[in-house]
Amino acid sequence: MSAGRVLILGLGPGDAALRTPQSTAALAEATDLVGYGPYLDRVAAAPHVVRHPSDNREELSRARHALSLAEAGRVVAVVSSGDAGVFAMASAVFEAVEAGDPAWRRLDIAVCPGISAMLAVAARVGAPLGGDHCAISLSDNLKPWPLVLQRVRAAAGAGFVMAFYNPLSRARPWQLGQVLSELRTLLPGDVPVVFATAATRPEERITVTTLAEADPALADMRTLVLVGSRETRAIAREDAAPWVYTRRDARTR
Amino acid sequence: MSAGRVLILGLGPGDAALRTPQSTAALAEATDLVGYGPYLDRVAAAPHVVRHPSDNREELSRARHALSLAEAGRVVAVVSSGDAGVFAMASAVFEAVEAGDPAWRRLDIAVCPGISAMLAVAARVGAPLGGDHCAISLSDNLKPWPLVLQRVRAAAGAGFVMAFYNPLSRARPWQLGQVLSELRTLLPGDVPVVFATAATRPEERITVTTLAEADPALADMRTLVLVGSRETRAIAREDAAPWVYTRRDARTR
Repeated sequence: MSAGRVLILGLGPGDAALRTPQSTAALAEATDLVGYGPYLDRVAAAPHVVRHPSDNREELSRARHALSLAEAGRVVAVVSSGDAGVFAMASAVFEAVEAGDPAWRRLDIAVCPGISAMLAVAARVGAPLGGDHCAISLSDNLKPWPLVLQRVRAAAGAGFVMAFYNPLSRARPWQLGQVLSELRTLLPGDVPVVFATAATRPEERITVTTLAEADPALADMRTLVLVGSRETRAIAREDAAPWVYTRRDARTR
Repeated sequence: MSAGRVLILGLGPGDAALRTPQSTAALAEATDLVGYGPYLDRVAAAPHVVRHPSDNREELSRARHALSLAEAGRVVAVVSSGDAGVFAMASAVFEAVEAGDPAWRRLDIAVCPGISAMLAVAARVGAPLGGDHCAISLSDNLKPWPLVLQRVRAAAGAGFVMAFYNPLSRARPWQLGQVLSELRTLLPGDVPVVFATAATRPEERITVTTLAEADPALADMRTLVLVGSRETRAIAREDAAPWVYTRRDARTR
């Protein structure tokens, strides 16, 4: 058995104070860093560490590359933003393990959790995830668009607070707009909506608005969009953005 | 305006390596610690720091107490396990702010996110949250049981991976069993199910099983239960528990 390892880790949303000591320790052990280029750029590493940056959308070949390096005895950190298990590299690695060389099942693979975008954004605006909630990727790269809409309808109808990842793409700029239109038929217009881009980073941009007034143009590919439930409230404040939180209690409707 | 502050923070699941530097720094600033007794016991603090432990289920009075202390100029850390915003103290604090003294809206309140139980458990078993997913509290203390069941049905029907918090209580030991029975009518019996108690702590106990074989007796009040979707897979390994992950792609059914 090789002494190689795969350490799949999330850097958190951006602020270094939100990276766990476990992920920091994993990075210090790594001989090789594998990941999307801009995420690797966030990692300071010793000069002997080999960087293998790759483009977006190459998750599966990147995963296979990491597994091959580990098989050859390297200690490979597979680096994601946020939490590696949420719409990020961890699933791709295990997909590659399942479909790949049976020897890969004997590799030492560990996942280090991270502060996900959803948790980071929630903390910045208050406590919108205090009630039942869900995370939905609006990308239709890997699932059909009607399924995305079906999930959005089911979640809104049952009273979940919703976090939307990948709200739109260059190829399909209409995705978030269609979801918001659909939601306006299911939920009151005063439900709070949060647009958060680059949360906790110097260029952070957060807008708190309502479902009636939510403008999809506030989102780009890096934006997380939170849509509240009927239990989500905005607390007005003087000289500051409102707090947004979801009440702990809920009623049948 | 008072110089008091409220710092609402999550300690993470248990392992100190999963507590963020931001939460550690917040604890170092605090003059007062407010929270459920067993969580405060996990915090080492200087001798001058005043501890205000309280019982479970006293969230709202605990929140008011923290706000009053901050109004009097104290720096109060409100301590939760996991992430403070997920079925924990952050919502209770904002509920108290909204219903309370208007002066409380001018207090300096900050939320520090934490590694939630759901993210910690997912990392321990692989990547079950790689697809769309939701978090549901099965407690009916604050919402009617039919609403809990409605949300479970909606989530399973639409293909969400589900994380169940508060799966049962001493007063209502039947909750999780009823949910699992309901899910067996909606999902294939081979869908992976994970029971995780005290994840990342020395006494951690994790069981990977299937929906057909899931035994509610594996859960107690501290257990997080993950139920997969049709895209969730278990990868068998020699001499180790299977990896569990959710495929990134999904199909309409």
